[in-house]
Amino acid sequence: MTQQTRAIVLVSGGMDSCAAIAIAREAGHDLYALHINYGQRTEARELIAFNALADFYEIPEHKRLVASIAHLAAIGGSSLTDSNIPVTEADLDSTEIPTSYVPFRNAHLLSIAVSWAEVIGAKKIYIGAVYEDSSGYPDCRPEYYAAFNQLIKVGTAAGNIQIETPILYLTKDQIVTRALTLNAPLHLTWSCYQGSDKACGLCDSCALRLRGFARAGQVDPIPYEVRPEYQ
Amino acid sequence: MTQQTRAIVLVSGGMDSCAAIAIAREAGHDLYALHINYGQRTEARELIAFNALADFYEIPEHKRLVASIAHLAAIGGSSLTDSNIPVTEADLDSTEIPTSYVPFRNAHLLSIAVSWAEVIGAKKIYIGAVYEDSSGYPDCRPEYYAAFNQLIKVGTAAGNIQIETPILYLTKDQIVTRALTLNAPLHLTWSCYQGSDKACGLCDSCALRLRGFARAGQVDPIPYEVRPEYQ
Repeated sequence: MTQQTRAIVLVSGGMDSCAAIAIAREAGHDLYALHINYGQRTEARELIAFNALADFYEIPEHKRLVASIAHLAAIGGSSLTDSNIPVTEADLDSTEIPTSYVPFRNAHLLSIAVSWAEVIGAKKIYIGAVYEDSSGYPDCRPEYYAAFNQLIKVGTAAGNIQIETPILYLTKDQIVTRALTLNAPLHLTWSCYQGSDKACGLCDSCALRLRGFARAGQVDPIPYEVRPEYQ
Repeated sequence: MTQQTRAIVLVSGGMDSCAAIAIAREAGHDLYALHINYGQRTEARELIAFNALADFYEIPEHKRLVASIAHLAAIGGSSLTDSNIPVTEADLDSTEIPTSYVPFRNAHLLSIAVSWAEVIGAKKIYIGAVYEDSSGYPDCRPEYYAAFNQLIKVGTAAGNIQIETPILYLTKDQIVTRALTLNAPLHLTWSCYQGSDKACGLCDSCALRLRGFARAGQVDPIPYEVRPEYQ
């Protein structure tokens, strides 16, 4: 029997990270789940989703890591981590970077994943980053992940850890379809930037998610405060 | 009067970071000082050095940031953050990566600096990384900083933040000479990985420092437990 490759999956608790776990599991890896609390408004709800997803995929406690980083909230600059900056309602046609952008956020998440990968000998890091539907965050671009893989190659002792972005080129409706095909538990996920009891239905993240389900011809199973219709 | 460029300097409190501040000050920048507590053994002593250096360069409190990241210690893998792994004595001729290597450490430090730079509009990030005398850490290589600058270019909203490594190609004795030429307060710095009252004189960091002073024809002004002779 060949040994499974260890893979770390970054799990925010949202539907993209759910799809990423499902794909990493299908690839046959030995899974480790990483969640990062960076002071985002809805962290408590996201953590519940993280553990529910890890439970669903039978990832044991010792293969889960929850890292808390207080400095992104201290640095500020984003409506996600600064309660003085309001979460704006979605404008899916806008080309501007929204207020929810956390400066250079993904580098912090990936750096933690890479450090952990070096110590446990993992060779893959899965992240559910999405390019087209990504609200224009600069750290969701394909060239960003190419640059990060180069950084890992020259900046680690091992040199052979690879970031995998299996849904980077998918649209949200394709992600919904892919996740459901893999029997991924989308009902356990949480994406809203605003609410914790019901999803608000109005923030960027809710809008992208609802539109994705609508275009995939599916009904999002989680509860919403308001549920605008998308096509 | 032209506006000064804002520059963040990563200040561990050691002599390399002291040289980096001195050089950034000489370049005429508006300085911001960043110190990161990643659970290293001698953090309390390093923090004293950080504040002493920031005081010396008259960097006001609101331009200082001390960020604490607990996850590197939680992840482990280094004698610097894991008290179960002993700090080895220096072998300056070895080509192996020493036990003090913290996996992918500098990416965490630089990511914090870049996020802060985006929020305050800083255009430069100074880091006192040293290639030749760097104990073989992979994240002190020139190609590592080239890769990180590429990551910033594609992964930030601003895109125009640059990492500066002004002492990357200097040897430790050249750093001593350069720092003293700029009247940098090397007596306020702390480099030892082991001790906090007196420097141990035996760890990698002490050995490199003592050899640097010796080769520069200078006497290191800080107290040592033992002071091996270097040439």
